[in-house]
Amino acid sequence: MTGHIYSAGLLCAALVLPAVAAETPLSAEDSDPGKLGWMQGFPPPADKRLRAADGSFFEFPALRYSVAHMREFSPTVNVSRGLEAPVVLNYRPDPVIDTLRFMPWGSDQPMTFAEAFDHNYTDGLIILHRGDVVYERYAGALKEDGQHAAMSVTKSFTGLLAAILVAEGKLDENKRVADYVPELTESAFGDATVRQLMDMTTGLQYSENYADPNAEVWQYSAAGSPWPKPDGYTGPVGYFEYLTGVQKQGEHGDAFGYKTVNSDALGWVIARVAGQSVAEQLSQRIWQRLGMEQSAYYQVDELGTPFAGGGLSAGLRDMARFGELVRNKGRWQGEQIIPSAAIEDIERGGSQAAFAKAGFDKLKDWSYRNMWWITHNDNGAFAARGVHGQTIYIDPAAEMVLVRFASHPVAANGANDPYSLPAYQAVADHLMSVKTQ
Amino acid sequence: MTGHIYSAGLLCAALVLPAVAAETPLSAEDSDPGKLGWMQGFPPPADKRLRAADGSFFEFPALRYSVAHMREFSPTVNVSRGLEAPVVLNYRPDPVIDTLRFMPWGSDQPMTFAEAFDHNYTDGLIILHRGDVVYERYAGALKEDGQHAAMSVTKSFTGLLAAILVAEGKLDENKRVADYVPELTESAFGDATVRQLMDMTTGLQYSENYADPNAEVWQYSAAGSPWPKPDGYTGPVGYFEYLTGVQKQGEHGDAFGYKTVNSDALGWVIARVAGQSVAEQLSQRIWQRLGMEQSAYYQVDELGTPFAGGGLSAGLRDMARFGELVRNKGRWQGEQIIPSAAIEDIERGGSQAAFAKAGFDKLKDWSYRNMWWITHNDNGAFAARGVHGQTIYIDPAAEMVLVRFASHPVAANGANDPYSLPAYQAVADHLMSVKTQ
Repeated sequence: MTGHIYSAGLLCAALVLPAVAAETPLSAEDSDPGKLGWMQGFPPPADKRLRAADGSFFEFPALRYSVAHMREFSPTVNVSRGLEAPVVLNYRPDPVIDTLRFMPWGSDQPMTFAEAFDHNYTDGLIILHRGDVVYERYAGALKEDGQHAAMSVTKSFTGLLAAILVAEGKLDENKRVADYVPELTESAFGDATVRQLMDMTTGLQYSENYADPNAEVWQYSAAGSPWPKPDGYTGPVGYFEYLTGVQKQGEHGDAFGYKTVNSDALGWVIARVAGQSVAEQLSQRIWQRLGMEQSAYYQVDELGTPFAGGGLSAGLRDMARFGELVRNKGRWQGEQIIPSAAIEDIERGGSQAAFAKAGFDKLKDWSYRNMWWITHNDNGAFAARGVHGQTIYIDPAAEMVLVRFASHPVAANGANDPYSLPAYQAVADHLMSVKTQ
Repeated sequence: MTGHIYSAGLLCAALVLPAVAAETPLSAEDSDPGKLGWMQGFPPPADKRLRAADGSFFEFPALRYSVAHMREFSPTVNVSRGLEAPVVLNYRPDPVIDTLRFMPWGSDQPMTFAEAFDHNYTDGLIILHRGDVVYERYAGALKEDGQHAAMSVTKSFTGLLAAILVAEGKLDENKRVADYVPELTESAFGDATVRQLMDMTTGLQYSENYADPNAEVWQYSAAGSPWPKPDGYTGPVGYFEYLTGVQKQGEHGDAFGYKTVNSDALGWVIARVAGQSVAEQLSQRIWQRLGMEQSAYYQVDELGTPFAGGGLSAGLRDMARFGELVRNKGRWQGEQIIPSAAIEDIERGGSQAAFAKAGFDKLKDWSYRNMWWITHNDNGAFAARGVHGQTIYIDPAAEMVLVRFASHPVAANGANDPYSLPAYQAVADHLMSVKTQ
């Protein structure tokens, strides 16, 4: 599955589908956006122009440019870093990392970490060990003072903000969604608990199969588009209105079902509870507290609603600062910024039985909690994950935070997991050996 | 003339028209965007929603919200501040300033500086004296970590970037525009000199009379809109293509004619010369060099072209840092950041005879040079000016930089000049008296 998974406002889900591309895509080197010249020139020549309105900007290889330029294609809302001086990270580069070898899943050909960087169409990768930067590298269209589309990594921010409100006693995870957002009473979300929403165990009639032109994701996409609706459009306007019409399918609480609408419904719930949009909450609670280098931003729909399911763009190092906050259970520079209970609840994970029903066969024993992916591996690793290979991967045992931005041609983590997850494990193993020296 | 001067992408000119409003607009207090509740709520109620596509977001009083949220209504391109720590300004507040009295033009009722703040619908005002902050105040929708639409103040950045290239010998002001942008050969700009373009003494068939539905500004607006063109649209796409069709009227070099298209044509010229967009140049040459607190941004057309004639939004203090750079002839913290010759050329001013022909009767003896407004007053003051009262006002004799963001209901500086320019002079007089104490 390649190509066009964005249409007019909706950035999609970290589906884990078979990594079968219709044709062999260009390599990372050959698809380098600088080399291909997207949007270069004054004006760019006709064949190098990318537009959001027709979706062309998010077709591979053009998406390799666009992931680092989302706000040039869409209205956005700022996530202010505040005005203080950035907190400078300490550097302790470890040249061994690029030479680490690992065995990709289903392969008998080892690969080095450096080879995986390109194989996975990585745009930026940073690794912190005990808070120090041991690895940092940029490629594609991403610069160190640029921002990259986090896509479904966004969901983990939404889930964490909700978990914070739960930990603070402001949001009751046992209440029904309709208790907080009455407009959702008649929708599938209405009688789900907040907890079911946070863990995506709602029963929804909603397909994110981008290959199906009738899949609900396309209607969601149209509703959330920031562009004027076409003549004759009679559907919902904005993410929230769409959510009010989502129908139930099956029962809540039975199975994990990875559906972006859950994140936006949760974004609605926490906006109502906090009286602030997810963008405002993220700025006030986190972005202004960690000495971020850059403000971040969300894409918005035509009512100004931040896309809580996939609309965040941010700088690589700032994502690492955030990851380090999470690794340290909410502490940053000696201060408890967010409740440790919110992080501990993520680390404990969700129901592995519910997760198993979702059919992510390669993610054996994993679970999903507060919109984070929990590996339940020996190291207790857990992650935020985006559909083109973006991740914030936190390995508590290895005292490691790894953040990767990417623009893989296949819009499904099944395409990169075999070449990324074991690579992350190799780094963790290496850092743990360093640790014991 | 009130109201809707924005349509789908074009922010307009600092026209100086008679300050006659069709009806008495709400006061600054009564039009406070927080009080009126624009875009508040999840989602905002129907009567509080603002949209860019239908222009509603830029009608007074809604514009009082929108001027501080431009990127929520339009695709934009970042002007990166880089990643260094901001340069902290020194504070030396002068409480006398708010009490200073001045006589508005054409009035016999004195007004205090504080009264003028509200009278002029000020959203933010900062004054530096010898580089120290002596006054700083926010109102309306602007926060200290927010950005405000600079509108035609943007032109002065474009003009200064061009003046820098001239000073560096990279741009020949005596060459014809078509020598740099061959696509403009057949347009009115083709046989104008770069100098005529920089000083807006081109002869163009182009009206920015927003009251006239057939004025060319509306076609320009449609071309520069970031939104998909309506069905059946056959006009130019993007700012640059529009410029190729501008026709000549009269002769070049005779008279100052304040027309936004000159700034965008100049933006095109300097993009070609530097191989960088105006946004990239502004970031690299200025925004990354002054320890700015915030990145700035430009609105873009659907080809990603920054709107060099009016699309910049930035923070108030960062505008003051920039003003201080200009006041110090390009020096900042002991380093020459931009050539002093570029600033000196602005300070000398342009042709007062050419300016007099433009009919700005209240701006007697002024001139226009490198897209800055030169007062030729005793203090040698000069300014960047935006259509709702935005300004960067530099008074060399008083060692003063005054930056004001505003959202006056009347889209013409003629409405606020009688209550702002004498107020600035009163501050200058005061600071000069401080100086001699």
